Amino acid sequence: MTFLFNSDARRGAIFADAFAKELPDVLFTMDAATVDPDAVRYLMTWTAPEDLARYRNLEILFSIGAGVDQFRLDSVPEQVKIVRTIEEGIVRMMQEYVALAVLALHRSLPAYLAQQRAGEWRDVPQLQAGSRRIGVLGLGQLGQAVLDRLKPFGFPLAGWSRSPRQIEGVTCHHGELGLEEMLAASDILVCLLPLTEETRGFLDARLFAKLPKGAALVHTGRGPQLDHKALVAALDSGHLSAAMIDVTDPEPLPACHPFWRHPKIVLTPHVASVTQPVTAALAVIENIRRHRDGLDPIGLVDRSRGY
Amino acid sequence: MTFLFNSDARRGAIFADAFAKELPDVLFTMDAATVDPDAVRYLMTWTAPEDLARYRNLEILFSIGAGVDQFRLDSVPEQVKIVRTIEEGIVRMMQEYVALAVLALHRSLPAYLAQQRAGEWRDVPQLQAGSRRIGVLGLGQLGQAVLDRLKPFGFPLAGWSRSPRQIEGVTCHHGELGLEEMLAASDILVCLLPLTEETRGFLDARLFAKLPKGAALVHTGRGPQLDHKALVAALDSGHLSAAMIDVTDPEPLPACHPFWRHPKIVLTPHVASVTQPVTAALAVIENIRRHRDGLDPIGLVDRSRGY
Repeated sequence: MTFLFNSDARRGAIFADAFAKELPDVLFTMDAATVDPDAVRYLMTWTAPEDLARYRNLEILFSIGAGVDQFRLDSVPEQVKIVRTIEEGIVRMMQEYVALAVLALHRSLPAYLAQQRAGEWRDVPQLQAGSRRIGVLGLGQLGQAVLDRLKPFGFPLAGWSRSPRQIEGVTCHHGELGLEEMLAASDILVCLLPLTEETRGFLDARLFAKLPKGAALVHTGRGPQLDHKALVAALDSGHLSAAMIDVTDPEPLPACHPFWRHPKIVLTPHVASVTQPVTAALAVIENIRRHRDGLDPIGLVDRSRGY
Repeated sequence: MTFLFNSDARRGAIFADAFAKELPDVLFTMDAATVDPDAVRYLMTWTAPEDLARYRNLEILFSIGAGVDQFRLDSVPEQVKIVRTIEEGIVRMMQEYVALAVLALHRSLPAYLAQQRAGEWRDVPQLQAGSRRIGVLGLGQLGQAVLDRLKPFGFPLAGWSRSPRQIEGVTCHHGELGLEEMLAASDILVCLLPLTEETRGFLDARLFAKLPKGAALVHTGRGPQLDHKALVAALDSGHLSAAMIDVTDPEPLPACHPFWRHPKIVLTPHVASVTQPVTAALAVIENIRRHRDGLDPIGLVDRSRGY
């Protein structure tokens, strides 16, 4: 029984240690060239290999990250479970990044950075946290963890998901109508949606128009969800005040792209949250144990939803 | 019995409303020209007026802010209590600003801002929160509130004060030796000290040399505590990695000052925390009630310490 790991050697060494200790009956390897394909029950990778079909006994395809949009789901054999990796490390990093981004926008950091460049010492009018409404798109594990971290600051919190949710201290919206409601009441909108056919181009001119004037955007979902031109237009017209953007399309962003130099955009190079090998190895091992016990792995993808 | 308020009209209107409702027996006025000086029992101001002695029956001198370094304490008659204003609004804003600053430095925002200016898409090595040690100088109400807000992120937390303290989840140091210990173990140092003769020039080359290589600084104390040239030298040598600075000396900072253009400094114009009139009025009224009941007002200054 073999676990084939397709990633870099540094991560691989950490996974190998964890498997040796926790699941000694599973052969851990990074060597696709010499592996017996029939023995491979588990494969962990970022992009699915072209020759996926050669692993005839594959049971679980693990994504290295929290997303599976890099897989073509319909090319993965029906009987193979597809599993996203949401582990403690990735959750904590996302909590940090979104808290940083929300506080930066709440406290007008982009405006102060522009003033610093201009040598201008002047305070910007400041809303209190109780008057700054936060709306989070996506209420999965990451969305919920992020809301939890924002709670002590006293922002009014809302969230939106496809299907109904209940989260203490958070006004939960769902469906088309719920989206309109939340957007109209979001001074800072945070996108944590998975990339699916439904969310491609989701953050567009129509959506921005539904936000209150002066609203700000945190984008930590996936690059293709954002209409880049529409964002620049909304910032330039003054309808949106600022944005903190971690994901773009394409990545890396070409040097000529307007995001680099836009005074109202803070841009980071897809670093909000990265799978942490130590905690990820434990999460994967736990999922293999669950699978063997006949339970669904945590992060099991629903192919009909695409995440 | 008169409360004389020396500040702007917008704040004054909010205070007047609160006094009318909560302390109707106290005459609230902003008009120093027509007030009966003998009736003035309470004076609230940022800087003490030259003719302070004319208020012969003054009982409490309230500072508008959390600091009293703008008063010459020895020029205030002995029998007058001097009281700092630490209210919910100022505490919340400081929690926000320091959380923002610590997260920004933890997640290498200054480096990413420099890369954005250069059009460079590249991730910077990232420590996990559990390996990023935070040290807070000053464990008064603001210091404690800030540590409380940082706690959920999982940073190892330490604090230093003149006299011993005990705070759950925080390694507390005090005195000269305790300072050395904390500095040697602070990857991000936060200064929240009051300005006194002892803390003037506190953040100097000797102190920076005691921090670990690559440490970062958050300065939200008072401008004259920081040796500006020593900070620039420590950043330029690479001993310190970055700084987020809210207070300077002088303020406003002259346009030619190196902080404006330094790629490792994020500079904000003394906006970290500002007294909020609604909550400040309630805090002042509560303190007058305490005083009348024979209790010490909250924020009573110990003249021998200077804060």
